[in-house]
Amino acid sequence: MQTLSKNAPMPVVRRLPKYHRYLKELLEEGVFKISSKDLSARMGLTASQIRQDLNYFGGFGQQGYGYNVEDLIAVIEKILSINNTYNCVIIGAGNLGKAIANYIFSLDGNAKVCAMFDIDTSKVSSTLKDIPIYSMNDLASFAKENEIDIAILAVPKIAGTEVAQEVVENNIKAIWNFSTADLILDDDIVVENMAINESFYVLTYLLSENNKNA
Amino acid sequence: MQTLSKNAPMPVVRRLPKYHRYLKELLEEGVFKISSKDLSARMGLTASQIRQDLNYFGGFGQQGYGYNVEDLIAVIEKILSINNTYNCVIIGAGNLGKAIANYIFSLDGNAKVCAMFDIDTSKVSSTLKDIPIYSMNDLASFAKENEIDIAILAVPKIAGTEVAQEVVENNIKAIWNFSTADLILDDDIVVENMAINESFYVLTYLLSENNKNA
Repeated sequence: MQTLSKNAPMPVVRRLPKYHRYLKELLEEGVFKISSKDLSARMGLTASQIRQDLNYFGGFGQQGYGYNVEDLIAVIEKILSINNTYNCVIIGAGNLGKAIANYIFSLDGNAKVCAMFDIDTSKVSSTLKDIPIYSMNDLASFAKENEIDIAILAVPKIAGTEVAQEVVENNIKAIWNFSTADLILDDDIVVENMAINESFYVLTYLLSENNKNA
Repeated sequence: MQTLSKNAPMPVVRRLPKYHRYLKELLEEGVFKISSKDLSARMGLTASQIRQDLNYFGGFGQQGYGYNVEDLIAVIEKILSINNTYNCVIIGAGNLGKAIANYIFSLDGNAKVCAMFDIDTSKVSSTLKDIPIYSMNDLASFAKENEIDIAILAVPKIAGTEVAQEVVENNIKAIWNFSTADLILDDDIVVENMAINESFYVLTYLLSENNKNA
């Protein structure tokens, strides 16, 4: 099966999880094939956008037939490596860290939180849903003894850069960054930013635009 | 002053908070003017991308001088309506709702959480950082007595659509959606999605691409 080239545009990659979600819902409804037109009506994208996106990973659409839903799901899951399990640690055991830990249980088992770490030793040794919480001092030994795929940063901006450095030094290759720190790291480290504050400003922009037109 | 046209591409709008953050940092460092080249080195964008973006809201760059940092900040703050305060309610008082409430205190006072609502009455009447938590049954009366700008949805996917309807019926015009429900609402309702799970899948995609190349 063809997979996305290394140079697939990131906007296409970012739309894949949404395609995946819609296609899974279709399958649950017993829909096994769908045209780009019907899919576009559901997803709020244009049919030509969908055809263009799906072309990147094989173009299974057949004229007058549409797309095979199961095939598309399989391809997308392969591209996104959705059926793997990723061992995660959460750095920062405050409310945000705890919320992420809870949230991750909803990710269909793709992510497993092995441990949380915090500099605040009053949080240490308590557990959250059977996830142990350790001192930051223990990160190095924990990372040595366990294979960690992803470090989730749930720390304040001021701590972000330092914590990221520590993560990288402990040979963890991917960071899901919930802090607002801009992390500048080596090319072999994968960083995905969850810029919650930027999303808020986009919302207020849209709200003020709407008020102008009201 | 010129402001972004109604039809400014959303990718440009989404970059504005980042420009804002970098420009504020420059000002704190005592930098009052900057070339697109220097700004591009800091932000990891190309200089031509920056010139193109900034052209959308007035193009203050002068040949051989660069951009006036304070002017740019003022324009961006105006466009994003950053200096307003927005009254928010959070629907869902679980870990995610609580994390958002805590997080919002870091948004420089632009957002004020007036109340949280939950169907789980065991959470009702407790307070979090002086924010009252009410029953969902009280949303209608609360929204009538208070001017609510934004409803923040921190509910499970299954509840998302119903809760959004209730929010809209109570005349709240903007939704910051942390549920994974796809909300299909009237055009006069502003929705900004915080798709945490999609971000996770992008991360695992990047991680598996990296592993392939390692």
